[in-house]
Amino acid sequence: MILTVTLNTALDITYRVRSLRPHASHRVSDVLERPGGKGLNVARVLAALGHEVTAAGFAGGATGRTVRDRLTDTPRVRDALTPVAGPTRRTIAVVDELTGDTTQLNEPGPQVTPAEWAAFQERYAELLDGASAVALCGSLPPGVPVGAYAGLIRAARTVGVPVLLDTSGEALRRGVAARPDIVKPNAGELAELTGSHDPARATEDARRRGARAVVASLGAEGLLAVTPQGRWHAAPPARVHGNPAGAGDSAVAGLLSGLVERLPWPDRLARAVALSAATVRAPAAGEFDRGTYEQLAGRVPVTFSRVA
Amino acid sequence: MILTVTLNTALDITYRVRSLRPHASHRVSDVLERPGGKGLNVARVLAALGHEVTAAGFAGGATGRTVRDRLTDTPRVRDALTPVAGPTRRTIAVVDELTGDTTQLNEPGPQVTPAEWAAFQERYAELLDGASAVALCGSLPPGVPVGAYAGLIRAARTVGVPVLLDTSGEALRRGVAARPDIVKPNAGELAELTGSHDPARATEDARRRGARAVVASLGAEGLLAVTPQGRWHAAPPARVHGNPAGAGDSAVAGLLSGLVERLPWPDRLARAVALSAATVRAPAAGEFDRGTYEQLAGRVPVTFSRVA
Repeated sequence: MILTVTLNTALDITYRVRSLRPHASHRVSDVLERPGGKGLNVARVLAALGHEVTAAGFAGGATGRTVRDRLTDTPRVRDALTPVAGPTRRTIAVVDELTGDTTQLNEPGPQVTPAEWAAFQERYAELLDGASAVALCGSLPPGVPVGAYAGLIRAARTVGVPVLLDTSGEALRRGVAARPDIVKPNAGELAELTGSHDPARATEDARRRGARAVVASLGAEGLLAVTPQGRWHAAPPARVHGNPAGAGDSAVAGLLSGLVERLPWPDRLARAVALSAATVRAPAAGEFDRGTYEQLAGRVPVTFSRVA
Repeated sequence: MILTVTLNTALDITYRVRSLRPHASHRVSDVLERPGGKGLNVARVLAALGHEVTAAGFAGGATGRTVRDRLTDTPRVRDALTPVAGPTRRTIAVVDELTGDTTQLNEPGPQVTPAEWAAFQERYAELLDGASAVALCGSLPPGVPVGAYAGLIRAARTVGVPVLLDTSGEALRRGVAARPDIVKPNAGELAELTGSHDPARATEDARRRGARAVVASLGAEGLLAVTPQGRWHAAPPARVHGNPAGAGDSAVAGLLSGLVERLPWPDRLARAVALSAATVRAPAAGEFDRGTYEQLAGRVPVTFSRVA
C-alpha cells in the first residue's frame, strides 16, 4: 500500500463560461466536481496504475463530505481522512470556452485545531505500518505548524518507509532539512528554495540541503533529477499541448510507483514524464489520457551525466 | 403563514479577493455562504419582520443539504422544500476588495424530472391551505415547464390566496396572463415584457396584460406602482450607497407583509422602499440594516396620481 498525505484537501470545481469579464454576470454552462489537493490527485493516478492507495489528510464540512463520497467511488483508494470541524476548501477553475484560459479562485482551507493535528499524527503513525512509500503533498491548512512535513518525514524514516515531499515555501525548506528520499519541486519552488534560477545548480543545492534525490519538474522541458548516481534529464519526445494542471501530481505518482516497483531511475523518470504528458492531454487534474501514456511510455529519452 | 416558492434555490457564496484578474490565480481571503434564490431571500426578510414563513421549492445534493441546514437555523422559517435528485446550484459573487465591484458566476440549477415537478405541485396545493399570501420568485430550473408560474397562480386564485410574482422573460409573460395580484418586475424585466423603456407606459401595459397591480423597482428611483386606484411613486428621501443585491427581494417582502397586514398602498410602498434601501446598506442579499430601515420607514415620500 502507498500512503498519500493531503493536509489541505479540496473540492475542485471547474466552471465553463464563454469568456470571464470582471464585474459582469456569467451563466456557467458546465460544472465539474472532483476531490482535489495534490495528494488526492496523486492517489487517483497511483490507483489507475494498479496500486493500492490509502489517502490520509483532513476533511470537514459539507465539502469534505462530498470529497469523501467521491473517494468511496474510486477503486483501490481507501479513505483514511481525519475529520475536522472546519469545512474543506473549494477551488474554482473558471475556463474560458473561447480560449481555454483559466482563472483560479482558491479558498484558504479550514482552521485545524491542535487536537485535530494530534489526531492526524496518531493516525499517520498507524498507517505507516504497512506502507511501502509515502507521498506528502501540497500546502498546509491554517493551524498546521510550518514544520509539519519535517516531523512526518522523520516519523517515516524512523520506521524505514521511503518518503517523497512535494510542497513549497517554508514547509519545503523545513521538510528538505528532515532528509526525505525524494523532493519534487517545480521551477518556481526550486528557485524560491535555493535562490538560484539555474535548474542544474539549484537541484544540486536542494540535494545538499538534505534530500536524497531531487526531481525538478520544468514544464515542457521535462524532469531534471539529481540522485546519488548523478544527474538525469528526461523530456517528452515532442511538445504536448493542453491543460498543465495536475501534471506535477502525475509525475509524483510516476516516481513513487517506480520506487515501489524498484525500477531503476531512468525508468522511473520516463514513466513520470509520460504520465505528466498524458495528464496535460486529459481534461482534469488527477486524470491522464491512457492512450498518450502508453504511446509515450517507452519513447521518453533519458540522458545521464555524472555530477562534477 | 406566508408561503414563498423558490423553484431554483441556490447556495449563495461570496468571495473576497484583492482584485479579480482574468487568467490569474487568486487567494480568496473571506468566504460567506447563505441560502439563496430570490424566494429564500424574501422568506428571510419576512421572518425578520416577524412573519411566520413556509419556504417551498426544490433542494438536492450536497449544496441542497447545506441550504436546508441553514434554513433550519432561521427562526420563523419552516423548510417545506421538495427533494430533487440533481444538486441545488451555487452562485458565486467575487467581490474586489479595492473597489467593491462584483463578478457573478451562476450555475444553471438541477434538471427537475416530471415526477419531481408533480411532487412539488402536490405539496404546493397542500401548503396553500393555511397561507395568507404566496410569493413566486426567481428563475425556473431546467425541466420545469415555462408555464409553471401561470399554473401556480391559477391554483392560488382558485382557493382565494393572493399571489405576488417576481420573475423574468417568458415565465413572467405567461405568469402575468394568469392574473396575479401583484407583479414586481425591475426596469429591465418590464422593458423585456412590454417592449417599452418608458416605465409609466410599461407599467400600464403590464397591468393590461393581466396583473391586478404592477410594482416596478427602478433602482435609485424607487418604486413605481399601478394599482386599481391609480399610479403611485415612492422613493428614498436621499440616495443610498451600497450593494444592490437583494434589494428587489426586500421590496417583495415589504409589499407582501403590507398586503397581509392590510396596510393601504402608500404604507406598503413606503415599507418596501425603506426595506430596499436598508438592504443596499447591508453586506449580503436577504439581510437588511435594521437601523436604516427604522430611520427611513416613516420618511419615504409617496406621490399619487390618477391614471389618465
